[in-house]
Amino acid sequence: MAINEAQKALQKEAIPVGAVIVDGASQRVVARAHNEGVEDLTALPLPLRHAEIVALTQASISLCCPRLDGCDLYTTLEPCHMCFAAISLMRVRRVVFGAYSPQQGAISNGTNVGLNSVPSVIGGIMEDECGELLKAFFKGKRDQHTSL
Amino acid sequence: MAINEAQKALQKEAIPVGAVIVDGASQRVVARAHNEGVEDLTALPLPLRHAEIVALTQASISLCCPRLDGCDLYTTLEPCHMCFAAISLMRVRRVVFGAYSPQQGAISNGTNVGLNSVPSVIGGIMEDECGELLKAFFKGKRDQHTSL
Repeated sequence: MAINEAQKALQKEAIPVGAVIVDGASQRVVARAHNEGVEDLTALPLPLRHAEIVALTQASISLCCPRLDGCDLYTTLEPCHMCFAAISLMRVRRVVFGAYSPQQGAISNGTNVGLNSVPSVIGGIMEDECGELLKAFFKGKRDQHTSL
Repeated sequence: MAINEAQKALQKEAIPVGAVIVDGASQRVVARAHNEGVEDLTALPLPLRHAEIVALTQASISLCCPRLDGCDLYTTLEPCHMCFAAISLMRVRRVVFGAYSPQQGAISNGTNVGLNSVPSVIGGIMEDECGELLKAFFKGKRDQHTSL
């Protein structure tokens, strides 16, 4: 489902990252979002409209709750520092991600220090499928530049 | 000006943190915001509505620009991981903060790794004035608990 969301970002020429949040108790999907997804967050500047932030916002509205204890977040890409800290502030229980982000990923770059609540993390699930979307996107961008 | 914003948060019983953004070229104030400030960001969950995020949003709207190159952000408290990464994503030039946040501050806890663009940082300006507001707020909270 998160990969499907990432494909929606791709159709808008945004970086293909998708995120889904599931309420652990009911197993209900409470958010599905993609990078630069605008629902409810039109005011937030574009560089901050990451799939995870949009999903956290949707889930909070969906559950009528400012915190997401007991919720699990699935994302196609390892969250950046901003998103991982936001996930922690929202008290998400668990993060499952696809492709690793060695340069900008919060887990790869060790940001556990300075967070009040650290969710459990599982990385590398469907890593190739998630990574291929990103590779194709950035290759397309490079090819565009080369042909200019 | 940022301290004045922090006092506004206090009046709303929110954690007293204030932030101001100045456009370096024109020296114009393009945002002044406080913790849990709601203008333009009502959808964003409360735990993410930090003074800095609200200020980044205001500045982006004020300048009609998704990035804030050449802007300086002043905040009464050392930014957390989420805010410092957001400041970096928005390409803010410089961060000036008052009180240090040894437990949760991004600079104190070394988050420079994993960020594409790191602003220059000056900490400890009017540290006592900024810190006193926070100490008084949390002392008040503890006293409330003790008296229950």
